[in-house]
Amino acid sequence: MRDVCVVGLGLIGGSVLRAAAKADRQVWGAAASDEDVAAARADGFDATTSLPDALARAAERDAIVVLAVPLTAVDAVLRQVAEHAPGVLLTDAVSVKQPVQESVRRLAPEARFVGGHPMAGTTESGWPAGKADLFAGAAWALCLAHDTELTWWAEIAQLAVEFGAQVVPVTAELHDAAVARISHLPHVLAAVLAAIGAEGGPLTLSLAAGSFADGTRVAGSRVELVRAMTEGNRAALLPALDTALGMLGAARGSLASTGSLGATIKAGHAGAQALATMRSADYTSVRIDLRAQDASDALLALGEQGGRVTAVEGSTALGRVPVTNQAADPR
Amino acid sequence: MRDVCVVGLGLIGGSVLRAAAKADRQVWGAAASDEDVAAARADGFDATTSLPDALARAAERDAIVVLAVPLTAVDAVLRQVAEHAPGVLLTDAVSVKQPVQESVRRLAPEARFVGGHPMAGTTESGWPAGKADLFAGAAWALCLAHDTELTWWAEIAQLAVEFGAQVVPVTAELHDAAVARISHLPHVLAAVLAAIGAEGGPLTLSLAAGSFADGTRVAGSRVELVRAMTEGNRAALLPALDTALGMLGAARGSLASTGSLGATIKAGHAGAQALATMRSADYTSVRIDLRAQDASDALLALGEQGGRVTAVEGSTALGRVPVTNQAADPR
Repeated sequence: MRDVCVVGLGLIGGSVLRAAAKADRQVWGAAASDEDVAAARADGFDATTSLPDALARAAERDAIVVLAVPLTAVDAVLRQVAEHAPGVLLTDAVSVKQPVQESVRRLAPEARFVGGHPMAGTTESGWPAGKADLFAGAAWALCLAHDTELTWWAEIAQLAVEFGAQVVPVTAELHDAAVARISHLPHVLAAVLAAIGAEGGPLTLSLAAGSFADGTRVAGSRVELVRAMTEGNRAALLPALDTALGMLGAARGSLASTGSLGATIKAGHAGAQALATMRSADYTSVRIDLRAQDASDALLALGEQGGRVTAVEGSTALGRVPVTNQAADPR
Repeated sequence: MRDVCVVGLGLIGGSVLRAAAKADRQVWGAAASDEDVAAARADGFDATTSLPDALARAAERDAIVVLAVPLTAVDAVLRQVAEHAPGVLLTDAVSVKQPVQESVRRLAPEARFVGGHPMAGTTESGWPAGKADLFAGAAWALCLAHDTELTWWAEIAQLAVEFGAQVVPVTAELHDAAVARISHLPHVLAAVLAAIGAEGGPLTLSLAAGSFADGTRVAGSRVELVRAMTEGNRAALLPALDTALGMLGAARGSLASTGSLGATIKAGHAGAQALATMRSADYTSVRIDLRAQDASDALLALGEQGGRVTAVEGSTALGRVPVTNQAADPR
């Protein structure tokens, strides 16, 4: 079992450090924030503000390095990786994958890199918000291309599985398009809704109940973090925003002209049902031999079907894939 | 204490019937749904599918009649009210207030009418989803105009208070504009988001986490109910949709041209803070003499400031209003 060096000790990095320690890995962390480093130390962890020291140790021990910094800090950290641990086994937890992949190719091309993104979080941030079981049951996107070295991929997948996560094999491009739909668009819509609610003044907020609270919850997240992830996924977010504008404009037009919101409400209900059906689906087990020639294709097909890798045993990935043709929800 | 006759025994009507019984009122209910009536009877309640019988009894006992039917059924019920209980003390729980008010003026003009709207609910529906404490701690909008007879208003307010609700005095017009922002727009945005997520296919839904689940929760509500409430508030929802389209279009334009979503995300964060600040605000107590000449104005001013009536004692309404100039949230 390789050691783990975590760069960035906020919510995600702090949770990775705790989870890796709980999985009996040797762990240490580095962060630019004095506050997070002091808090991690106070909790008994090995943490430093010296990124060069942490990376040099990673190179010496051939550890896995996990980048858990905002996208805006990735390039600066990668320059340090290239200097102090150029060939290290490297992964990240940044919420967009194509921009990070491009930065790695440009700034740390010798790193054995596998991009990752745990789909877990809270509206809180910083070391104190982290916890060892943050990733339990969560999806962990792990990037694959046809030229990815699967032995590296398997090692990072194994680490995510140790944290209780389920690994979703995906290309960087499909990942970024997906999170634009299910993470970044929700943040933009929540912001719009929260602003419109508050514009209504105290009476309006006084009447706000569940639908408004649900729809605006993520609008309370830290502005810099939301900006970093949404703006960092600009290429994929723009078409998602265009789709949303088109659907919302069509709803507005239909309500104005015919008085009906039927098409919009029905499409939304069908979408909610699709999510519920998927979450309550039966699964079948699959085994993928990572030494096979088509292993990458098999992993990517698993991910595209909504499947997940739940264990890695030697050179075999064990996974599960939802059974399609579910009986329709009776409601 | 007047008896209570509830028309409509779904989630809201079923909860009103249970809550009124728990408050030691004599209660009975009527519904068009055989299923809801049978379920209410099985739970030991006095329920019938004969609306004329239920209304005739209400007229005879001078009971409060609570309409808890979808907007689309209101006119038909009001014609029965005009026939069997024309002068009854009447309130409703429909989610839009101007259309109901207009229907009452047109179809049951002799009724002593006070429009209401409890701000509580779940995505479930029907009698089994109801519960006596559904309204505990919830806002209950109760309509006032300058010509409203405050003795009627006080009786309905007292009933809502008995259910554990807090009463928000509001004009029908301001109510409809407010719920367009904090209830109907959230439903439309949730529908758009759910449809866009599902359009991404199984991989996209597999990666969906908290922000998507929160943002789409109400998209799982029954299509007919969501259509009835959103389409029924068309006049107020159209400008809210226009504001949302304008803000979303501005976000799209800014992201495309400058790469920034700063203005949108900051406005959303400020909106979320405004809600959080209001919910954690200190309150001061107020007393309003309902016999005073300016009592309606005082009640409406209370509502506009985010205040609520929490008790009615004789001809005095006791309420609370949030203290403004709160210290800024430290986050």
